[in-house]
Amino acid sequence: MKHPPCILCIGGHDPTGGAGLQADIETVTVLGGQAMSLVTALTAQDTHNVASLLPTPADFFTAAAERLLRDITPDAIKIGLIGSVALIPPLVQILRGFPGPVVLDPVLAAGGGFDLSAVRLVEVMREQLLPLATLTTPNRAEARRLADNDDAAEAAQSLLHWGADAVLLTGADEATGEVVTNHLYLGDGNPRAFRWPRLPHRYHGSGCTLASACAAYLALGDDVITAVNRAQGFTAGALQVANQPGGGQWLPWRRG
Amino acid sequence: MKHPPCILCIGGHDPTGGAGLQADIETVTVLGGQAMSLVTALTAQDTHNVASLLPTPADFFTAAAERLLRDITPDAIKIGLIGSVALIPPLVQILRGFPGPVVLDPVLAAGGGFDLSAVRLVEVMREQLLPLATLTTPNRAEARRLADNDDAAEAAQSLLHWGADAVLLTGADEATGEVVTNHLYLGDGNPRAFRWPRLPHRYHGSGCTLASACAAYLALGDDVITAVNRAQGFTAGALQVANQPGGGQWLPWRRG
Repeated sequence: MKHPPCILCIGGHDPTGGAGLQADIETVTVLGGQAMSLVTALTAQDTHNVASLLPTPADFFTAAAERLLRDITPDAIKIGLIGSVALIPPLVQILRGFPGPVVLDPVLAAGGGFDLSAVRLVEVMREQLLPLATLTTPNRAEARRLADNDDAAEAAQSLLHWGADAVLLTGADEATGEVVTNHLYLGDGNPRAFRWPRLPHRYHGSGCTLASACAAYLALGDDVITAVNRAQGFTAGALQVANQPGGGQWLPWRRG
Repeated sequence: MKHPPCILCIGGHDPTGGAGLQADIETVTVLGGQAMSLVTALTAQDTHNVASLLPTPADFFTAAAERLLRDITPDAIKIGLIGSVALIPPLVQILRGFPGPVVLDPVLAAGGGFDLSAVRLVEVMREQLLPLATLTTPNRAEARRLADNDDAAEAAQSLLHWGADAVLLTGADEATGEVVTNHLYLGDGNPRAFRWPRLPHRYHGSGCTLASACAAYLALGDDVITAVNRAQGFTAGALQVANQPGGGQWLPWRRG
C-alpha cells in the first residue's frame, strides 16, 4: 500500500499546543496526512503571549533536515515561524530541491504581540523564500510588513511580484464588524473573496491551522483554490469549538 | 463548558513524526485530550536510527515550564525522553507540585540502538523520578537497566520498590514467537499478563504511543488497569495499520 501523503512542517514549538508545530501536526493528522516536522525555534509562552524564543542552531537544523530528507520524501512542505536568519540558507536548500507544493505562513508576531522576526529576517524571507512558495498566507499586518507597503491589498499583489504563486491575505487580525473577509490573489487580476462569520474570542494558532490545512489539502491533491477554500472551512470549524484551558487566548479544537 | 482534559507531554522531538512528542500529540489528540508539550531535546534522526541529540538548556526548559504551568493546569503528565541530567531538577519540581497521574516512559535507547541516556541519568531517574510516577512503562531492556538487575521480572518488582505505583513491563523488544506479553505490576504480588499477536515489522514510536495513551486514558478518568488495557489496544491498532514512508522502521498510524 502506498503510504499516506507526508507533509513536512517546519516551524516553532509552542508548549500550549495551540500554535506552531503542534497545530500543524494535529491539522495534518486529522485531515489524513502523515506529519513530519523540523523545529526552527523553541518558545516559552502561554495563552497570553510569547515570552522568549530559542532558535535552533543552524548546523543542527541542517543535519536534522538532511538526515530526514535522505530517508523520506515529503508530498508538501509548510513553513511557519523561522525565528533566525541563519536558518534561511538551509531552508532555501530544502525548497530548491523540492518539486511539490510549498506553503509559507510568514509568522512575524505572536497573537499577544511579541515580535518574532527581525527586520533582516523579513527582508531575506521576501527575497529568498517567497519566490519558492506555491502559496503564502499572511494576515494583513504581515503582508504590509513583508511587502513594505501600508496598503494590504497592494502588499498582497507585491508578494506575487516577489515570486509567490498565490497569496491568501487573511482578514481576521483587522476585522471589526460581523464578517471576516480573506482574499486569494492568483495573479490573474481577479482576487477571490471568502467571507466568514467573525467569532467572539481571540484564538491562539488560527493562522498555523489554516496554513497547515492548505498544505495538507494540496498534498492530498487539491488545486490551490479548492485547498484554500477547504482549509478555511476546517479552520473555521476548529475555532467554532475552541476551548480556553488557560487565562488568555482560546485554543482551536482540531478534530475531523 | 469545561475544557477537555489536558495532558502535558514532556519529551524529545523526532522529525520523522513516528516517535517522541509527535507520537504523544497525535495519540492524545485522537483519544480526545488536549496535548501540551515541553521539549527536552531535539534529535536528528530518520526511520533507521537516531544520529544526534541536542538537549534543551535547563534554564530555558525551566522558564518554558513555569510560564506554561502558571497558565494551564494539566490533568495528567507524561514523561518520555529526558536526554540530560540537568533537566531532572525542573522535572522533579513540576511533579512534586502536581496531584494528578504521572506516566514515566523511561526512554533509554532508540529503536535503532542509539543510546539516549548516560549512566548518571539512569541513576537519577531511578532515585528522583520513579517515586513520583503513577505508572512507568519500561520495555524489558529498560527495566533491567533502570533497576540494575538482569532479570526483567525482578527488575519490574524493584521499580515498585523504588516508588512507582505501577509498572507496565512491555515485552515486544525481546519477543521471538507469535505472541507479545506485557505484564502489569501493581505491588499486590499478582502481575497481570496481557497477550497480543506479535506483528511482522519493526516500529518507530510504539512505546511513546503506548505511554501517552496510558496518560490520556488516566486523564479521562480510567483506573490504571483499565487505562493500561485500553492503551495497549489503541497501540496495537496503530501498529496493525502502520506504514513505511522511509527505508527503515514502520510508523504507527494513530487514528481514532
